[in-house]
Amino acid sequence: MVAVEKTVRLTIVGFGHVGGGVAEVVMRKHQALKEIYGLDLRIVGIADLKGVTINEKGLSEPEIAKFRAGDESVLAYGMSTEDMIKEVEHELMVEATPTNVVDGEPGVTHIVTALESGRHVVTSNKGPLALHYRRLMELAERRGRELRFEATVGGAMPLISMIRNNLAGNRVISIKGILNGTCNYILTRMGEENLPYEHVLREAQEIGIAESDPTKDVEGVDTAVKLVILANTVFDMDATYRDVKVRGITDITPDALKLAHDAGYAIKLIGDVDHEGRLEVAPRLVPLRDPLNVNGTLNVATIRTDLAGDITVIGKGAGPIEAASAILSDIIGIYAR
Amino acid sequence: MVAVEKTVRLTIVGFGHVGGGVAEVVMRKHQALKEIYGLDLRIVGIADLKGVTINEKGLSEPEIAKFRAGDESVLAYGMSTEDMIKEVEHELMVEATPTNVVDGEPGVTHIVTALESGRHVVTSNKGPLALHYRRLMELAERRGRELRFEATVGGAMPLISMIRNNLAGNRVISIKGILNGTCNYILTRMGEENLPYEHVLREAQEIGIAESDPTKDVEGVDTAVKLVILANTVFDMDATYRDVKVRGITDITPDALKLAHDAGYAIKLIGDVDHEGRLEVAPRLVPLRDPLNVNGTLNVATIRTDLAGDITVIGKGAGPIEAASAILSDIIGIYAR
Repeated sequence: MVAVEKTVRLTIVGFGHVGGGVAEVVMRKHQALKEIYGLDLRIVGIADLKGVTINEKGLSEPEIAKFRAGDESVLAYGMSTEDMIKEVEHELMVEATPTNVVDGEPGVTHIVTALESGRHVVTSNKGPLALHYRRLMELAERRGRELRFEATVGGAMPLISMIRNNLAGNRVISIKGILNGTCNYILTRMGEENLPYEHVLREAQEIGIAESDPTKDVEGVDTAVKLVILANTVFDMDATYRDVKVRGITDITPDALKLAHDAGYAIKLIGDVDHEGRLEVAPRLVPLRDPLNVNGTLNVATIRTDLAGDITVIGKGAGPIEAASAILSDIIGIYAR
Repeated sequence: MVAVEKTVRLTIVGFGHVGGGVAEVVMRKHQALKEIYGLDLRIVGIADLKGVTINEKGLSEPEIAKFRAGDESVLAYGMSTEDMIKEVEHELMVEATPTNVVDGEPGVTHIVTALESGRHVVTSNKGPLALHYRRLMELAERRGRELRFEATVGGAMPLISMIRNNLAGNRVISIKGILNGTCNYILTRMGEENLPYEHVLREAQEIGIAESDPTKDVEGVDTAVKLVILANTVFDMDATYRDVKVRGITDITPDALKLAHDAGYAIKLIGDVDHEGRLEVAPRLVPLRDPLNVNGTLNVATIRTDLAGDITVIGKGAGPIEAASAILSDIIGIYAR
């Protein structure tokens, strides 16, 4: 497996939980990646709202810690994020700014700039892919660069690459799953404790599982966006998240969960896409013994195929290290196969 | 994705359920594989105990049907299986003879002959890999050929390739799972219907889920063999199935299943391998809400990793088309990535 050693210079744009996780994982795995894949990964630039820090030889852990802590001594004075993407020599940009489903910015600009500057792009940002999938993929192809995005759907759960590689030769008929851990947590707790939605939502917000504005999660927008990415990559659609029929979980009552349970079902927020163009997010009855009936913050997807039958994958849908794991597997996939 | 069209000539050795499934799938998918992967797959030879049939331009469906029906007019008179592997020009041999865990034959001889003749090998036969893993992999490497075996573990469940590709960058800590659908079926039915082992075994034999001699399944041998293949590929061990501590399911009673259930557990035959060399097959308590608690003939594995956390895959562990799906994804993996 080991090839000639290859240095790959990375920049990270967006340095919140996910960007920070990527830096941590690249540092922690540096030696192992060299030994196993012959890849010498160096972070040569990081950008976020605070500014930009660069080091063409690779940023050290103390430099990264200073940047994270807001120490202005490490900032590249007067350099914008786009300057960094264009002017700092590097092979691959990790785009990890927050998802924006209105216009996809600033992710779209970052990705376009990077591809046009000849960088590969690996992203966890769902907005650009849910709004401009085809345009971005075509740009990547024209520039001979890769645009990968395993982290956008299901966190560490290897869904997109699994369908592309491991189920090669299969025709995918449908994908159905729980793609939002916050909703799954809320419905699980409501069912287990017979508690109303508002109560469990507050609890989830207190322990950091739901955001202070939970709309995107509980109204199904996040699930819809992920579904669109699956639709476009697996079924070659050219959908945007506005094409998805969406209903969230805010109307679900403990009584409904109990009635369902007594009849042998759980209620889950299910995203559903199939080869005929169905694109739907809604609360659905799931048989208690179905592999889709996973609890807590877990994500799950069942892929229906013509040869392999139903394949189900379950994993942690969120978390900075989990997202970084997906980003790292994308990076390795570009260089080491 | 489409490259220059490439003709790949296959032979199939062993023409039972799995070999027949491969032929069926290659025929059914011929046009799609050309369009999607630029692969023109042609079956130029088939061998089993009846003899050998060959056609250097690719066997037609009627020729294959005649061979299957025992029509001697399509047999290549005087040609042995080894002659075919050596002398018929082809790029890839599919080895699908039954698993033999005593000495791995005739699979070992077929695989060695094919690799030495410069053919890639894709196999569903567990025996050779459970007994001579390292030797066979080294031979393949020396000859610059690939030896792939996704179908040996978990049928259509993409376990080996998922760990290799999609979890790249992760360190695998352990793999734990239900790798035998017959045992899972028996334990599921015993628990659901409160029926004794012997009764459910007979039922399983009647509907073709258990073999007339069920020893390999119910004594845990089949699970142990699969565990060894995982240990060798994922943890780079050099184990054989004799290194596995094995206990089967023949002592499990409906009472034990009921007691476990009342306490919130199912009893499942679990194969367990970890990075410290643990290799064990035994009935284990599995929490009812654990993703490992799948029922019927399903297979499941939970892969514990350092970054991605626990990833669980569920799928059909057996069936000719499912095995053929895994074999086909291996073939595509060799040529089309």
